[in-house]
Amino acid sequence: MYKQAKGWLASSPPRALTLGFVAIILVGAILLKLPISLKDGQSIRWIDALFTSVSATCVTGLVVVDTGTFFSVFGHWVILVLVQIGGVGFMTMGTLFALFLRRKVSLKERLILQESLNQNNLEGIIRLVRRVINYALTIELAGSLLFTLRFMLDMPPGRALYYGIFHGVSIFNNAGFDLFGDYRSMSNYISDPFVNILSIILIILGGLGFVVLADLVEYRRNRRLSLHSKVAICVTLLLFVVGAIVILLFEFTNEKTLGPLGTADKIFAALLHSMTPRSAGITTIDVSSLRQATQFLLVILMFIGVSPGSTGGGIKTTTFAVLIVAVLAVFRGREDVVLLRHTIERERVYKAITVTLFSFLIVVAGTMLLSVTENHTFMGVLFESTSAFATVGLSTGLTPELTDAGKLILILLMFMGRLGPFTLFYAVGPKHGRPLYRHAEGKIIIG
Amino acid sequence: MYKQAKGWLASSPPRALTLGFVAIILVGAILLKLPISLKDGQSIRWIDALFTSVSATCVTGLVVVDTGTFFSVFGHWVILVLVQIGGVGFMTMGTLFALFLRRKVSLKERLILQESLNQNNLEGIIRLVRRVINYALTIELAGSLLFTLRFMLDMPPGRALYYGIFHGVSIFNNAGFDLFGDYRSMSNYISDPFVNILSIILIILGGLGFVVLADLVEYRRNRRLSLHSKVAICVTLLLFVVGAIVILLFEFTNEKTLGPLGTADKIFAALLHSMTPRSAGITTIDVSSLRQATQFLLVILMFIGVSPGSTGGGIKTTTFAVLIVAVLAVFRGREDVVLLRHTIERERVYKAITVTLFSFLIVVAGTMLLSVTENHTFMGVLFESTSAFATVGLSTGLTPELTDAGKLILILLMFMGRLGPFTLFYAVGPKHGRPLYRHAEGKIIIG
Ligand SMILES: [K+]
Ligand SMILES: [K+]
Repeated sequence: MYKQAKGWLASSPPRALTLGFVAIILVGAILLKLPISLKDGQSIRWIDALFTSVSATCVTGLVVVDTGTFFSVFGHWVILVLVQIGGVGFMTMGTLFALFLRRKVSLKERLILQESLNQNNLEGIIRLVRRVINYALTIELAGSLLFTLRFMLDMPPGRALYYGIFHGVSIFNNAGFDLFGDYRSMSNYISDPFVNILSIILIILGGLGFVVLADLVEYRRNRRLSLHSKVAICVTLLLFVVGAIVILLFEFTNEKTLGPLGTADKIFAALLHSMTPRSAGITTIDVSSLRQATQFLLVILMFIGVSPGSTGGGIKTTTFAVLIVAVLAVFRGREDVVLLRHTIERERVYKAITVTLFSFLIVVAGTMLLSVTENHTFMGVLFESTSAFATVGLSTGLTPELTDAGKLILILLMFMGRLGPFTLFYAVGPKHGRPLYRHAEGKIIIG
Repeated sequence: MYKQAKGWLASSPPRALTLGFVAIILVGAILLKLPISLKDGQSIRWIDALFTSVSATCVTGLVVVDTGTFFSVFGHWVILVLVQIGGVGFMTMGTLFALFLRRKVSLKERLILQESLNQNNLEGIIRLVRRVINYALTIELAGSLLFTLRFMLDMPPGRALYYGIFHGVSIFNNAGFDLFGDYRSMSNYISDPFVNILSIILIILGGLGFVVLADLVEYRRNRRLSLHSKVAICVTLLLFVVGAIVILLFEFTNEKTLGPLGTADKIFAALLHSMTPRSAGITTIDVSSLRQATQFLLVILMFIGVSPGSTGGGIKTTTFAVLIVAVLAVFRGREDVVLLRHTIERERVYKAITVTLFSFLIVVAGTMLLSVTENHTFMGVLFESTSAFATVGLSTGLTPELTDAGKLILILLMFMGRLGPFTLFYAVGPKHGRPLYRHAEGKIIIG
């Protein structure tokens, strides 16, 4: 019986990955439901404990209760561990232990890892995982240290260390959780260049994905980047700059957002809010005060999201790039879809369409269901639905007021968004004898 | 000089088509600006005359002034002629005159027709055009006659004939214009089965496109339908039924829409409002009173639209079908995209993506611009922007209150929506030595 179940799981890495996620979420919910996780005098409903656990494990950051003022230090650590597991990848964590115990990593485990990191190349996975952990911990350590130094100006050293670690880890993992209370996120630091720049760098590093990070580190030796890395970096920077310019334009005179700030602060805030929808979720200004056009821009940036195999969500930068060049190829009457002088094979283009349409369908369905369950503006439900699916965590204020039905909808959106269409499909699909990654041979990663 | 200009036009049918459209719109605007087009004591601004002319020529039906109470009988006839030219196709009309004059139709003219009807088969175009005119006039005549008979119960015979012709032509051409005044559209006939059923049939016939109509007429002889016709008919009926069920579900208890109606009337209204977003634009209930989820459903139906080579807009039923089967193929790990046991060639799939993404981009851009120029809810601007681009004409009430900038945005959306991405691209593109229709060899029409 046990052996049968083991065989059933081993036969499908996506299924094991999905069930592993579910297990971690449930453990997280139970821990967060315990009184020890809460500040004195607080109590939490099961649905809210589940919502918080899903939001942390799926590194989203949407919150139904205020993290800073509602949970105890123990609760914060539970959230941070869930973020770390969900962000750096719980499969990577599992292998970390395996490596520490000098156990040989089995083919099955490597297949699971492959799914988790969205990597097509089976060889070198193990080496990659070791590096993933190294890079993630190094960046988190550096980020936490720098945040700690900065926070020491505002609070006692112990608290600064605690805040430094929490926000360093949370921001690198694109988790969107913060401890500053009252749903204010980082708004105290709107005029602080150090916090702004550090946050942006951590968001970018977390969102590029470990494959790109590894590629960047090896650049000194190889003097070349893979197509995948080039595309991920180009799209990331392009959207970052264009987004910041448009936000600056739309919000320059908005008295509730950028209006009262000096020119330099305006630029910092525009840069941060161009980056945070992809898919960090921290803010220094009130998202609900942004103009409608800006909120719509954020929805689009959230939907595009970050790069594959990263701590964030969305349809991914490479998917976006492939779609754009496919459209250009048709307009030019060309047979082949060409991206940075590489032909993209048909299968990859189809996969890009599939990811995009499927994601669009989920967001549309979520938005429509929230329209029915919540009494809120359309922009409000569209924004929250996209934020959940792309695991961003930005909110116009709807989430804390959600009905239970609404909470369940967002829980499903976050879960589906973090796992992605292919993992989900192969996890529940009756037949998966010919999973897509077996056909794959290209150099670029979609979804 | 004249010869050069003629050569320049002849070298690009899309360019000729686009400029022809512009010319007709300008003539229409000038005619509608004349005092003879207006009811006594009324005057119209140039921007409003232009808007009305574009709306009529692009068979949209969005109105900045109330058609029934603002324009004179002459003005109504101007609108109706523009609708007829824009709907049945001004190129087809041109050939109609050519045929009447027994002039030989040149290759150039046939190429223009080919573009206009989105037909890939150059041969048989002439025969098709003759049929197009026959079918269109026959259906319009039948529709007008039936409407006249019905309206004779409510008004004097002369007026009933006038109303019968106007609404028969307007509804078959998916134009969305009506004469009932006060922006009420057909709301007097909400409980009238005859008007509801007749309208739905005319909308469907107009929206299937002439290719499908011809195919249906020949069915008695051939006993088979082309893949294109099968797909167009299936998607049309499927969306019609599913849309009606969802509308019934969402609006059943809404006291401002279906709530007060009897069961049969509820069903009629649900059916009509499932069909009218694709892309007729007539209504019997107030669109702005619909629940948010229903309005969102209408936005989706409007975006999908009708079939290629018809009187309506949107990304088209066949495009939608190809995208769906492409996604299914990827999920199943299949190499080929299969639709009703026919493989769809890669080029067609890419064209479907292109049409969809381009349309999406235009609607998103329009929505964002309207968000800036208009002080209105997000659903309001999204709805109006989609309605304009898909040449539907449904409105939540924003259009009559538009700023001049907003009117210009909708004018551009209607124009781009009616011409479609490929005609537009080849009309303005510097190089079009390898236009797409030269490569085409498939059996299904996209866009
Ligand atoms: K996040
Ligand atoms: K219309």
